[in-house]
Amino acid sequence: MDHRGPEFGILTKSILERVKLVFQTRGPVIIYPSSGTGAWEAAMMNLFVPGDKVLAFETGHFATIWKNVAEKLGLQVEWVSGDWRHGIDPAQVLEKLREDKGQKIKGIMAVHNETSNGITSDLKAIREAIDQAGHPALFLVDVVSSLGTTDFRQDEWGVDVAICASQKGFMMPPGLGFNALSQKAIQESKTQNNLHSYWQWDRIIEMNERGYYPYTPASGLFFGLDEALTMLLEEGLDQAFARHKLYARACRQAAIHWGLENQCLNEDEYSDSTTALRVPEDADADVLRTLILERFNMSLGTGLGRLKKKVFRIGHLGDFNELMLMATLSGVEMGLELAGIPHNKGGAQAAMEVLVGAQLS
Amino acid sequence: MDHRGPEFGILTKSILERVKLVFQTRGPVIIYPSSGTGAWEAAMMNLFVPGDKVLAFETGHFATIWKNVAEKLGLQVEWVSGDWRHGIDPAQVLEKLREDKGQKIKGIMAVHNETSNGITSDLKAIREAIDQAGHPALFLVDVVSSLGTTDFRQDEWGVDVAICASQKGFMMPPGLGFNALSQKAIQESKTQNNLHSYWQWDRIIEMNERGYYPYTPASGLFFGLDEALTMLLEEGLDQAFARHKLYARACRQAAIHWGLENQCLNEDEYSDSTTALRVPEDADADVLRTLILERFNMSLGTGLGRLKKKVFRIGHLGDFNELMLMATLSGVEMGLELAGIPHNKGGAQAAMEVLVGAQLS
Amino acid sequence: MDHRGPEFGILTKSILERVKLVFQTRGPVIIYPSSGTGAWEAAMMNLFVPGDKVLAFETGHFATIWKNVAEKLGLQVEWVSGDWRHGIDPAQVLEKLREDKGQKIKGIMAVHNETSNGITSDLKAIREAIDQAGHPALFLVDVVSSLGTTDFRQDEWGVDVAICASQKGFMMPPGLGFNALSQKAIQESKTQNNLHSYWQWDRIIEMNERGYYPYTPASGLFFGLDEALTMLLEEGLDQAFARHKLYARACRQAAIHWGLENQCLNEDEYSDSTTALRVPEDADADVLRTLILERFNMSLGTGLGRLKKKVFRIGHLGDFNELMLMATLSGVEMGLELAGIPHNKGGAQAAMEVLVGAQLS
Amino acid sequence: MDHRGPEFGILTKSILERVKLVFQTRGPVIIYPSSGTGAWEAAMMNLFVPGDKVLAFETGHFATIWKNVAEKLGLQVEWVSGDWRHGIDPAQVLEKLREDKGQKIKGIMAVHNETSNGITSDLKAIREAIDQAGHPALFLVDVVSSLGTTDFRQDEWGVDVAICASQKGFMMPPGLGFNALSQKAIQESKTQNNLHSYWQWDRIIEMNERGYYPYTPASGLFFGLDEALTMLLEEGLDQAFARHKLYARACRQAAIHWGLENQCLNEDEYSDSTTALRVPEDADADVLRTLILERFNMSLGTGLGRLKKKVFRIGHLGDFNELMLMATLSGVEMGLELAGIPHNKGGAQAAMEVLVGAQLS
Repeated sequence: MDHRGPEFGILTKSILERVKLVFQTRGPVIIYPSSGTGAWEAAMMNLFVPGDKVLAFETGHFATIWKNVAEKLGLQVEWVSGDWRHGIDPAQVLEKLREDKGQKIKGIMAVHNETSNGITSDLKAIREAIDQAGHPALFLVDVVSSLGTTDFRQDEWGVDVAICASQKGFMMPPGLGFNALSQKAIQESKTQNNLHSYWQWDRIIEMNERGYYPYTPASGLFFGLDEALTMLLEEGLDQAFARHKLYARACRQAAIHWGLENQCLNEDEYSDSTTALRVPEDADADVLRTLILERFNMSLGTGLGRLKKKVFRIGHLGDFNELMLMATLSGVEMGLELAGIPHNKGGAQAAMEVLVGAQLS
Repeated sequence: MDHRGPEFGILTKSILERVKLVFQTRGPVIIYPSSGTGAWEAAMMNLFVPGDKVLAFETGHFATIWKNVAEKLGLQVEWVSGDWRHGIDPAQVLEKLREDKGQKIKGIMAVHNETSNGITSDLKAIREAIDQAGHPALFLVDVVSSLGTTDFRQDEWGVDVAICASQKGFMMPPGLGFNALSQKAIQESKTQNNLHSYWQWDRIIEMNERGYYPYTPASGLFFGLDEALTMLLEEGLDQAFARHKLYARACRQAAIHWGLENQCLNEDEYSDSTTALRVPEDADADVLRTLILERFNMSLGTGLGRLKKKVFRIGHLGDFNELMLMATLSGVEMGLELAGIPHNKGGAQAAMEVLVGAQLS
Repeated sequence: MDHRGPEFGILTKSILERVKLVFQTRGPVIIYPSSGTGAWEAAMMNLFVPGDKVLAFETGHFATIWKNVAEKLGLQVEWVSGDWRHGIDPAQVLEKLREDKGQKIKGIMAVHNETSNGITSDLKAIREAIDQAGHPALFLVDVVSSLGTTDFRQDEWGVDVAICASQKGFMMPPGLGFNALSQKAIQESKTQNNLHSYWQWDRIIEMNERGYYPYTPASGLFFGLDEALTMLLEEGLDQAFARHKLYARACRQAAIHWGLENQCLNEDEYSDSTTALRVPEDADADVLRTLILERFNMSLGTGLGRLKKKVFRIGHLGDFNELMLMATLSGVEMGLELAGIPHNKGGAQAAMEVLVGAQLS
Repeated sequence: MDHRGPEFGILTKSILERVKLVFQTRGPVIIYPSSGTGAWEAAMMNLFVPGDKVLAFETGHFATIWKNVAEKLGLQVEWVSGDWRHGIDPAQVLEKLREDKGQKIKGIMAVHNETSNGITSDLKAIREAIDQAGHPALFLVDVVSSLGTTDFRQDEWGVDVAICASQKGFMMPPGLGFNALSQKAIQESKTQNNLHSYWQWDRIIEMNERGYYPYTPASGLFFGLDEALTMLLEEGLDQAFARHKLYARACRQAAIHWGLENQCLNEDEYSDSTTALRVPEDADADVLRTLILERFNMSLGTGLGRLKKKVFRIGHLGDFNELMLMATLSGVEMGLELAGIPHNKGGAQAAMEVLVGAQLS
């Protein structure tokens, strides 16, 4: 299919309309041939110039590397340190913004769901803190691993840029990065004067009107995205969210039974997409992961950054169902035994009871 | 690819050589565009004429419909009745053949693995009984659900025609039927004068020499068969057999724990491909199956023939691994609870211990 | 997908309804896992017993091998010899049937489109001849290479069994054989007592009512057939027929220009699916074909049976368009020159003018 | 496949080794999830800072938009204007560099093959001009539509960054951008202090050592790239170049016969990948293109930038063969007639004679 031809234009326009429903926004959604990190850079390149100040929170590995990207772009990051076991504290947001008398903070950067440790921050409460502080900063949110799995309401929660990628909730291969934009973000980008081209929103928005792009889009992946949108919208977002919430709950029940500690300490912040479990101090999570990969051909998520060897991560998102969860938890339970990691047997069994209970209720 | 062109000829010859390794034979293997029932008919059409006598054993549903096919072809079937819970008794084979003073019995028909009830007959012992009786009957075996999962040695066990299909151990879509032939079978077919054409071995053997067929082969499926052979031979037959044996054992452990009765009563005859479990008298296995299909999108095997509503069947063969087995057993265990069928929880857990034990040993 | 499950039943019923539209019949259509030759055998096995007399016409290679199959089945074939350059002469049909005072002829077997030489017989005229003779014989027609490309009206033309396969007009891989049945054929089959099982219509018709089969259907190919039917019916049969007629006409114009003789001598009988062209006496069509395959990676049809080395065949059917025809004809024209076969250049050019003319009219 | 797992690491290392052979370099090749325009930006971001001076040549549309990107990045572009009908004049390169007494020019940007007008610049001669001037500027070359189709020798010709994308000579869907690097480019990038992150070579080179990426790579496309490399290296680069040269020559012969003017005026600069043909003054190339798309389902390249409506483009690269070229040219010739554009019939025929001639020689 010719990416400058009429059929591709029709496909693109259909995708761009429907993808808004997933972000729960009426604003435009930019789709880049890029990774999720590219989509971060895009958002910052369009909104900030070197020296601009942004407020960011150390909720985990991805928040940290986003901060690093911001610093490479020359931004001055006000970094609220954290223990990688809690989400963003809205009270701290309020405090930091109130301290910012001169309103130097141009942007607030939050990771909705930290895939690295299975912690979800409460965006609605953060929005309320921003409003309470009466602060005009832009609100940028990484929804890479939450979109399509966890309720996210861009317009209602006043998110200015929602940053996403294709390989999680869209159930696709990687290769597409997303920026969903508020009108405020679009306006702000027009006043900015950064020296870049590839990420420029305005040219893309303009050409998207007719269904085209100022660059060669990753058209092969557009067919996948078209199908992913059909699947998500057929299931219904609410149903998809409920489904992920159930899998996460069952997974945690297994962990409780095994006696493995959840990396997330605040139960209001448990992730519906991923659960990160800590192995005992004297165990190595990567030894466990390698063993499970070799013996059962199952790839668990590795501990990232400072969690290396300390946690392993169970993804329970996307094109996933009850029996895939049971296969996953059974693989973990067998791996724990083979690796000699102390645990109580019966975690998978405990998860099964959660799943059955949900069917019965 | 042109099925009369040189590339297809090369592919066919490579397939025909390697498929012999799976049957453990040096004889030719005929591949039909047909179902497995077609491959039965083929074997009988090439070897017998109406009025010929064959000896067959009621081991289950497939043995019964094979008998029906034989009768439709005009054969006189000496039918050794059975309870669908045991395999073929070699002592009975010996007895029947000894009774056949005039050696009227031209063929002995055995189902190696009865998919319908998870019972495997001991072909080696049957061969020994035939030899002990000094009877010249041809030995025809249905290996549809055993080939590639359970040790089958055509030449060593003196099997004259092994009948198979593509959709079980070859891990393929249905559409191909197989007849693997001994020299004795080929000789016998030449003396026979049945009026048929499609199934005729001699024309096919002759054209296969150059890699072609006297009809249009189902060439699309040949690519799948090529890949299946590569996979099976890379894994190694012995390793594949051991793997299936383990899954079957773990599955039975789950059943024991649940308190569900195995349809197979003789533990030496448990199938490595499929396990058929009986539901309690007042339960309906098809209600359970439908519930599991609707709730967990998993399709279990239905009870066939006289086992309808009485058993459900768990297939654990082909492109299958430990975690798929755990998913399957978890789905069954959840289904039992949702269907209100009395059982002890923990069957999946019990299977897991078998699987872990095998890794540890 | 479980071939005994509800989804497959729905798919099958939808296929069985829509496939009737392509045969232009209201009767049932049987689909076998088989080749087209299997579907021939099926029709004869259901209708005739050894010794029955059938009338058949030597229109080419496929008619001849169909006759051979009939003879292998023990039928007595009244064989009207021919020169492989003409279709069936309706006057001869009339004559043969009038000679059959005792109405011993039970069936008339006609190949609608002889793929081997590109000759189409006039079924409507043959029907009229049968009617004129007042003869009760069943009318069996091979529509393997005409269905979906050339107007075929089973009910209107009183065809009792239309025999087809998946790999031509259905644009699919081989592996499915078809028997479309009149009520008269179904009735007749019930009175017949042939000894066979696989091909039996009655059991299949009965199980098809609910969307299932008495054997394991080649379910993978059913998805392709579903798509093929959608494509054919979306295009519309009339449009598909007109499209094939145009390609055939353009192809013949190229041949006329090249100075190659059409194997078909009667212009009313030119095939819309395939054109068979004769090479000069001292040339070898297979040398030409091999050269074109090696140099241009294009596989032309070989001369079959007595036409071996004398003709090559150009298929212009199925998922085919103007530019594919031009590619094909260009490959032929280049091959003729490389093979040193005398011809006038410009045949492809001449075909192009036919195609443009059709667009302009 | 887990992009942080061992299998992906092995795949990536194999790709990164083999892709060097295609660039004819020993230096590292960076692969981005991006379009080709992203790969341009990457090269400039790593080497230049705002205010840096680069020399660029107006060879056509892509050279012009590359210049635009450079200006958006704040570079000062010395723009050598052109008529879009000639490649880069090496004498002008020499002159411009000699004029640059202070050696302010940091980079020279050349498009190897201008897809927009079918013009190839002589990189070897440009390199010689640079050497003759004794100028230290970096040499950046866009090989998007030449790599794999036209001889390109990064090391021998002293190219510092070769910029490519997946969708042309690699015969893949779009979504990957490439930077092949000289040691000089790598050294230079280390001294540069641009504020960016996504495009940074050093982090990628470092992680590539072990087969990984600092971002989520577009792993799905890596499988395609693996296959593309296998195909290209099996055919052999020289054979691939000769093949493309032949197709281009045949295509031009058609154009000469039709009487359509080639957009490229210098026969030494004809592209082997694409041919751009001018329609007569009073015709509209886009009307022609639309007609051909609608009637024959063939998508020709549109006239880009100032060539809009004036030219149409025939791509003859990648997974392409003689018969596809003949289909293409036949479609063009039929389209010319249907659109009423004056031309001499027989262009496709003329191309065929070139192709046959090549086979005969």
